[in-house]
Amino acid sequence: MRKQEQSEYSGFRRAGIRLNEELIPGLVPHDSAKVQRTLFAAHLFDKAHLVSLVEEQLVPHNDGVAMLQALRDMEHKGVEKVRLETQGGNHSGEQYLIRLLGEDVGGRIHMGRSSPDFTTVTGRIGRRTSLLKIMEELNALRDALLGIAARHYDTIMPAYSHGQHAQPTTYGHLMLAWVAALGRDFERLFQAFKRENECPAGSAILSGAGFPLNRHRVSELMGFDRPIANTFDATQHADNLLQSFCAVSILHSNLMKWCEDILLFTTSEFNMLVIPDRFCGTSSIMMQKKNVYSAEEIKGAAAEAIGGLTTAFIVEKDITSFPVLDRQYSIRACYTAMDTAVRNLKWLTEMLPEIEVRREHMQERAGEFWGQATDIAEALVRETGLNWRSAHQIVAILVRHTLKKGLKPSDATLEMLDAAAIEYFDRKTGLSNEAFQASLDPVNFIMRRDIFGGAAPNEAARRHADFKEQLEKDRQVIADLRSQQEAAASKLESAINTILVSQPGHP
Amino acid sequence: MRKQEQSEYSGFRRAGIRLNEELIPGLVPHDSAKVQRTLFAAHLFDKAHLVSLVEEQLVPHNDGVAMLQALRDMEHKGVEKVRLETQGGNHSGEQYLIRLLGEDVGGRIHMGRSSPDFTTVTGRIGRRTSLLKIMEELNALRDALLGIAARHYDTIMPAYSHGQHAQPTTYGHLMLAWVAALGRDFERLFQAFKRENECPAGSAILSGAGFPLNRHRVSELMGFDRPIANTFDATQHADNLLQSFCAVSILHSNLMKWCEDILLFTTSEFNMLVIPDRFCGTSSIMMQKKNVYSAEEIKGAAAEAIGGLTTAFIVEKDITSFPVLDRQYSIRACYTAMDTAVRNLKWLTEMLPEIEVRREHMQERAGEFWGQATDIAEALVRETGLNWRSAHQIVAILVRHTLKKGLKPSDATLEMLDAAAIEYFDRKTGLSNEAFQASLDPVNFIMRRDIFGGAAPNEAARRHADFKEQLEKDRQVIADLRSQQEAAASKLESAINTILVSQPGHP
Amino acid sequence: MRKQEQSEYSGFRRAGIRLNEELIPGLVPHDSAKVQRTLFAAHLFDKAHLVSLVEEQLVPHNDGVAMLQALRDMEHKGVEKVRLETQGGNHSGEQYLIRLLGEDVGGRIHMGRSSPDFTTVTGRIGRRTSLLKIMEELNALRDALLGIAARHYDTIMPAYSHGQHAQPTTYGHLMLAWVAALGRDFERLFQAFKRENECPAGSAILSGAGFPLNRHRVSELMGFDRPIANTFDATQHADNLLQSFCAVSILHSNLMKWCEDILLFTTSEFNMLVIPDRFCGTSSIMMQKKNVYSAEEIKGAAAEAIGGLTTAFIVEKDITSFPVLDRQYSIRACYTAMDTAVRNLKWLTEMLPEIEVRREHMQERAGEFWGQATDIAEALVRETGLNWRSAHQIVAILVRHTLKKGLKPSDATLEMLDAAAIEYFDRKTGLSNEAFQASLDPVNFIMRRDIFGGAAPNEAARRHADFKEQLEKDRQVIADLRSQQEAAASKLESAINTILVSQPGHP
Amino acid sequence: MRKQEQSEYSGFRRAGIRLNEELIPGLVPHDSAKVQRTLFAAHLFDKAHLVSLVEEQLVPHNDGVAMLQALRDMEHKGVEKVRLETQGGNHSGEQYLIRLLGEDVGGRIHMGRSSPDFTTVTGRIGRRTSLLKIMEELNALRDALLGIAARHYDTIMPAYSHGQHAQPTTYGHLMLAWVAALGRDFERLFQAFKRENECPAGSAILSGAGFPLNRHRVSELMGFDRPIANTFDATQHADNLLQSFCAVSILHSNLMKWCEDILLFTTSEFNMLVIPDRFCGTSSIMMQKKNVYSAEEIKGAAAEAIGGLTTAFIVEKDITSFPVLDRQYSIRACYTAMDTAVRNLKWLTEMLPEIEVRREHMQERAGEFWGQATDIAEALVRETGLNWRSAHQIVAILVRHTLKKGLKPSDATLEMLDAAAIEYFDRKTGLSNEAFQASLDPVNFIMRRDIFGGAAPNEAARRHADFKEQLEKDRQVIADLRSQQEAAASKLESAINTILVSQPGHP
Repeated sequence: MRKQEQSEYSGFRRAGIRLNEELIPGLVPHDSAKVQRTLFAAHLFDKAHLVSLVEEQLVPHNDGVAMLQALRDMEHKGVEKVRLETQGGNHSGEQYLIRLLGEDVGGRIHMGRSSPDFTTVTGRIGRRTSLLKIMEELNALRDALLGIAARHYDTIMPAYSHGQHAQPTTYGHLMLAWVAALGRDFERLFQAFKRENECPAGSAILSGAGFPLNRHRVSELMGFDRPIANTFDATQHADNLLQSFCAVSILHSNLMKWCEDILLFTTSEFNMLVIPDRFCGTSSIMMQKKNVYSAEEIKGAAAEAIGGLTTAFIVEKDITSFPVLDRQYSIRACYTAMDTAVRNLKWLTEMLPEIEVRREHMQERAGEFWGQATDIAEALVRETGLNWRSAHQIVAILVRHTLKKGLKPSDATLEMLDAAAIEYFDRKTGLSNEAFQASLDPVNFIMRRDIFGGAAPNEAARRHADFKEQLEKDRQVIADLRSQQEAAASKLESAINTILVSQPGHP
Repeated sequence: MRKQEQSEYSGFRRAGIRLNEELIPGLVPHDSAKVQRTLFAAHLFDKAHLVSLVEEQLVPHNDGVAMLQALRDMEHKGVEKVRLETQGGNHSGEQYLIRLLGEDVGGRIHMGRSSPDFTTVTGRIGRRTSLLKIMEELNALRDALLGIAARHYDTIMPAYSHGQHAQPTTYGHLMLAWVAALGRDFERLFQAFKRENECPAGSAILSGAGFPLNRHRVSELMGFDRPIANTFDATQHADNLLQSFCAVSILHSNLMKWCEDILLFTTSEFNMLVIPDRFCGTSSIMMQKKNVYSAEEIKGAAAEAIGGLTTAFIVEKDITSFPVLDRQYSIRACYTAMDTAVRNLKWLTEMLPEIEVRREHMQERAGEFWGQATDIAEALVRETGLNWRSAHQIVAILVRHTLKKGLKPSDATLEMLDAAAIEYFDRKTGLSNEAFQASLDPVNFIMRRDIFGGAAPNEAARRHADFKEQLEKDRQVIADLRSQQEAAASKLESAINTILVSQPGHP
Repeated sequence: MRKQEQSEYSGFRRAGIRLNEELIPGLVPHDSAKVQRTLFAAHLFDKAHLVSLVEEQLVPHNDGVAMLQALRDMEHKGVEKVRLETQGGNHSGEQYLIRLLGEDVGGRIHMGRSSPDFTTVTGRIGRRTSLLKIMEELNALRDALLGIAARHYDTIMPAYSHGQHAQPTTYGHLMLAWVAALGRDFERLFQAFKRENECPAGSAILSGAGFPLNRHRVSELMGFDRPIANTFDATQHADNLLQSFCAVSILHSNLMKWCEDILLFTTSEFNMLVIPDRFCGTSSIMMQKKNVYSAEEIKGAAAEAIGGLTTAFIVEKDITSFPVLDRQYSIRACYTAMDTAVRNLKWLTEMLPEIEVRREHMQERAGEFWGQATDIAEALVRETGLNWRSAHQIVAILVRHTLKKGLKPSDATLEMLDAAAIEYFDRKTGLSNEAFQASLDPVNFIMRRDIFGGAAPNEAARRHADFKEQLEKDRQVIADLRSQQEAAASKLESAINTILVSQPGHP
Repeated sequence: MRKQEQSEYSGFRRAGIRLNEELIPGLVPHDSAKVQRTLFAAHLFDKAHLVSLVEEQLVPHNDGVAMLQALRDMEHKGVEKVRLETQGGNHSGEQYLIRLLGEDVGGRIHMGRSSPDFTTVTGRIGRRTSLLKIMEELNALRDALLGIAARHYDTIMPAYSHGQHAQPTTYGHLMLAWVAALGRDFERLFQAFKRENECPAGSAILSGAGFPLNRHRVSELMGFDRPIANTFDATQHADNLLQSFCAVSILHSNLMKWCEDILLFTTSEFNMLVIPDRFCGTSSIMMQKKNVYSAEEIKGAAAEAIGGLTTAFIVEKDITSFPVLDRQYSIRACYTAMDTAVRNLKWLTEMLPEIEVRREHMQERAGEFWGQATDIAEALVRETGLNWRSAHQIVAILVRHTLKKGLKPSDATLEMLDAAAIEYFDRKTGLSNEAFQASLDPVNFIMRRDIFGGAAPNEAARRHADFKEQLEKDRQVIADLRSQQEAAASKLESAINTILVSQPGHP
């Protein structure tokens, strides 16, 4: 029993032990509020570590029972609440147990364990939890998109490149493109999850614990796939954080791009989409405004995420094992990016299906700015056997002529095409007027794109089925990950039960 | 009087006016908590704008009096407190006045003004306030450093390049180098302050207010240098934010570098500095540890700042006037960087003067790893007329020989030097033993560096005076800026007084 | 004379001197090709340093004469060419002189000087040279813009915020906004120039040269403003590089934003600007395409510049004096950003005046999407004494009604306004039809914006004069900087002449 | 036959076709030099596309034969050489064929294909090629590290955290930590490879080719895993580039961190590693210097890579399909990062095994700064049953006492420990002197770390075997990828052979 009253126990960094002065206030690192979001993970680690200590007979059985019982009791009051009150951050469990049971008992929990064990274990649990949430929201969005896509395989719209009308596509085909991108995001997030789901516990900073802890057991009880095979690596490297952050940043990048599209498509000039009012604001001076707040917030959060990734890379630019408190800035930035990712996905899942798609307007526009021109040249190739390049150049001349005259595609005639051909190679094209007219219609353009992955409705429907199947597989992936975690949680509680009911002295 | 009760007034974006649905909760942009740190600036703008409206007879005199009086009254209750309760963010003043005085009166305050007027005015005031704080803290640190430097112009220490012992210097000379760098930071921050201290008010989004506001008057009453000369530019560009953010990021970069040095110099191996306990933590497992928390936090905050700057550049990559809510992410990141800059400067100002400088150890090390070698070659040039390059090469051979034999500089002899010379050009150097021995002493090395800006104590003392003088000038700069703001505040209050005492109907 | 033939002299890092092995090929840092762009600056430094050595009698007079003469002779053959052939990078001068004159003479040039002296001196000269070029191109662009602006103060166009029609403005007013932004870029670049134009020479790595060099003289002969007052600071800090890089990055950011606008305004949907063909490409498949290549390249270069700035911040995150070769990556990235800035400014200066501005279309659009709505509310305030907020809400209701009915502003009637008023507060507005109709015309909207800095043509013309005046001042700034450099060059050549004609032994 | 001579054919963007002016020189995008590194991939795509055109009877058989024969002939002269001379960038094949065979024949190759098809196909091939090289070099480095590790499982050294002595470890254990990190890099690069190895060909910009190309066939002939299932997605999204860039950047980050360690460990103060001379430079003034150039270059390249990643994220912040030429800046930055990654890995693989590890010095240091203190507390727990926290605090007091007295761990006595215990809880510890002494020896410290993944030599050897096994698996992964590419190449050449020998008119 130490001289001070136990109730005064305020953590291992007390003035007068190793150092003579109290820390200045801003520097206290073991602050529960700073790690609030992973206090649940610290609790989990405390329990799993204790089970191992008891099972390996590294603490007196009765002490182990008392501590496990106290942690169980804490759960009734609320783990987060108690640990916030207790202070001590990741060490709030020890602090609580010492105050409750005395240092002779509660002082045993931390044996063979270091603060980096805590930081890395809780960090990995915190990130895997957030990754799983993101993956679930991602799947909800994929599902919503597939629903939208299915209604729009015949909604013809212009598509762009270099900011210019490129070719017609369909809104459904475009939605599938996003489903495809989000499917890759899912894969990257899953790869990051697997990377995070390895257990550093037992590293005891870097050379490994000096007590014969059972690292496999602790790993299993916390739902990890395996303990990390090198204890130095386990706590000192952070490329797992970078990998998760990269995966989340790429997702943000994808959503940001999308929101740029939405802002463009909702300009009065493009006027292709109408956003539900509840996602929009107006102006304190320009009362006509309908500002798409949601898209702007999503873009802002993406910029923040990518800046945060830069922060993380800067932090990691350091001598191994030197950045410790600095790494907290990376960890927090990553959580911010993860939280906004969840928020953004939720918003999009709610918003996108309720966006009004201005079909007629979009189809009309699809053929108004020569987006279908490719098809005229293709008709020349198909119908007259002309080589592609000559066909391309002749239609290019046709377009130049019509634009100069202020004509629209619908004003173009076979004669004009032949005039272009004559300018190009002194002869007419030989194309039939029927074929020429057919090539001016964006609907025909779309119908002809029935190549694998193309925009034709039938082909899109075929690929839709593939994407749907992939989504179902990915949903099963999440279900499996959840099961793994639930099984681990059951195993942990069973192990605790077994300990709690066993006879003192008979472990 | 509108049909709803005034007390219900909840801002201009009410469902049923322009848009039919209420915003989803996460999207409310005019949230007082989000702009809490600049509610004081919104209040200042409200007052200055109202004075101008009254002076230009754009509102009925009595209405102006009532509104100004209400804002004065608000100050008794606490501007921030009332505006947080009132909600409405930057529009909290209008919201408050409408609820208190009715829409017929309070609804007049916002005429000729837009939300971007608010955002840019309060943003510039918020940043100039923070810049001034940083500049003050910077000067405090410069002062502290000059104090340290003065005590250490004869504290000889090794200096490094490429991570290797380069030459001896003094701790005082090193401190002056930091004073110099911080002086440049001051200049950059001041340039940013001047950039920020221009007034966008009256831009009314971008084409200028439609009412004949007096932009010069409003600018003056808020302590700005001048109104911005193009209203589109005033609210739509944000390079002023980028400039401030860059200046703050460079300061962070400088402090981060310094903290890298501190961490190096406090390793057991370098062991040149001892940090006061209250800036250090220890370990939950390795009880011998004394971890320099302060330096790590400063590094982390710098990484965060630079990542935030990336965020700001990403946000600005957009069509002009498109990023609005996204720009809030830049603004917040900039405040974070500014706040941590203040914090870091305070910590360093407190910590650095109390760091124990291990003089003897440093001086001993300064000559132990051939840092003084340059001086032997210089002695050869000075004493024997040998050209520099040959001298350099001969001493290089000497160093190689001694290292191979495991000898230290203090073990080197003139014979060894001559052996190197013979290896190089088949003859001895002709250097006297006295000159050779003198060149081995780091003290002599330092004394000889009396070139302008060099490390010799007398020269350092001369430059110290210059740096001190510059610091005094920069303190005066701050005093002048404060005076300008105080004079503006007086002018504003006088103007309000004048209005409040004037007869109704007799403006 | 060393044993090897002089002609073999290959620099100071020869195997067998300090180190036993030759460097692996990829690591040779003193590679002329790598520093090609600043070989002229190394030459300048060689000459100025030599003059000082001779003037201070630190080298035998005849040796100084021989070396200066040899450097003069080199100029006939071409400094860059000879130094590239000679190899040695910054040390190419010494290498050349030793091969030509022998080590006993040529080996004297580098006394009192270090590689960092070279790197920092040539880096500062390289960057100040590029900054000056950028500033000149910037002024050319500002001039071109003022020319464009003058032709377009009555070219009414829609302006946007949140991507939505905000208010009418004029193309001239918009151009002035860019002139204003570029004026700030000029100031930042000038501040960076002044920061760079301080001389580190004589620092001899960090403690100062051991020979009594005249640092003020060398600084003056190279056109610097002053020698840097602390030799450690002079070579070991790089915040000057960061400052220049920030200034250039903000410029890039501004140009990038502009090009985003151009891409938007040249979409078929916006269709407000037509770009000259020579800045555009087309497609190998979509022959109708006219892709604005120039804008895309400018955006790409800006992204590269900002990424390069990140690189520079990462490099600087290091222990003082540790990053040396790594800093080369920052230096190169900065030059890349500077070169593309020059390129981009040239392109824009050529392109912008030749862009076809589709006046009628723009003016028509300005009033088609309720951009003028603000003015109706302002008319209510002015004409009927209604408070602003009520007026704003009533017009908001009007807009909602008309949009619902698919009406345009030109279809709106006073009756509709009064219907909105009745919905709002159960009474009509009392506005005259004349005032209502007048408020629907974007031309009136613009004319009314004659507030300081506003969009009204007369006001824009007044501000135009101010901007023009500022441009003239900034041109004079450049002229002064050029004069300073030319005066320094004359002084240097005169000093060399004086030395070359002086009698041997009579310095 | 077009009017101009075929030999003049200069690509599809000729003045007078779609546009009237020639491009300004800096804007020519189809520049062979700019895409030099992937001209081989453009050639591969030309051949595979042609085979498909012939097989699907989309071109006259004889024309197909002539074109394939011409491409075969080009290979004799050198694909890169010919295509550089021919100009046209990705379109150099078409340009070559038209000049050789006339537009009627050569003009057929590009049918159903777009420039983005080219950019994305060659980009993916270019990156997969570089990823494979990096992965091979990574495996070579892992192998080298395992070799080093095996020699150093008993090389005891201090390990650090927060920059302070933490605990002893072994150099072998540290090497294994790096093997582990590089193994994760391998996995990330492999995941990126799989992501890249999907084929966009046939997308024809975004809606899919209008001709019935066989996308599966073309994909297979180029060694891709599969065609991408949505043609819009295939060419318009670039998250695959971001993923590769992230994977490479994390690798760079790991290597940068390592080089920070090397620079620290080679300081005179740490003096734990000696780098072979050929990786080091010296100074032009400080001849004693031995600067670790390789480590600095590796760090610089990493900073460049991460900055490049920022560039890529900035480029992608844009409306879908808008950034085209800007994306080239990302692509180039990614190749730069990939090339420097290969370079850095090669250097490290050559350098690390030849670094002299100063065993005795390292072991001596391991116990000199209380790194073993943890073990004393553990002895108290093990031997006396004391709880961990009390043991920790008592040893902390012991350390404070000894440091105050200037004593080393080897000077510490059991009496001192008991004095600390008395200070802590008024009684002695009860520890035996034997146990106390044993706990002071770093060798014992290491031996006790035989927990899974710990630093004990036997345990390290067990994990070594696992890492070796993983490396062998990953080598097989590369072998399999190579086989896949070789099989595809054979299949392509067979298909061409089949076509070339078939009778005209009998496809």
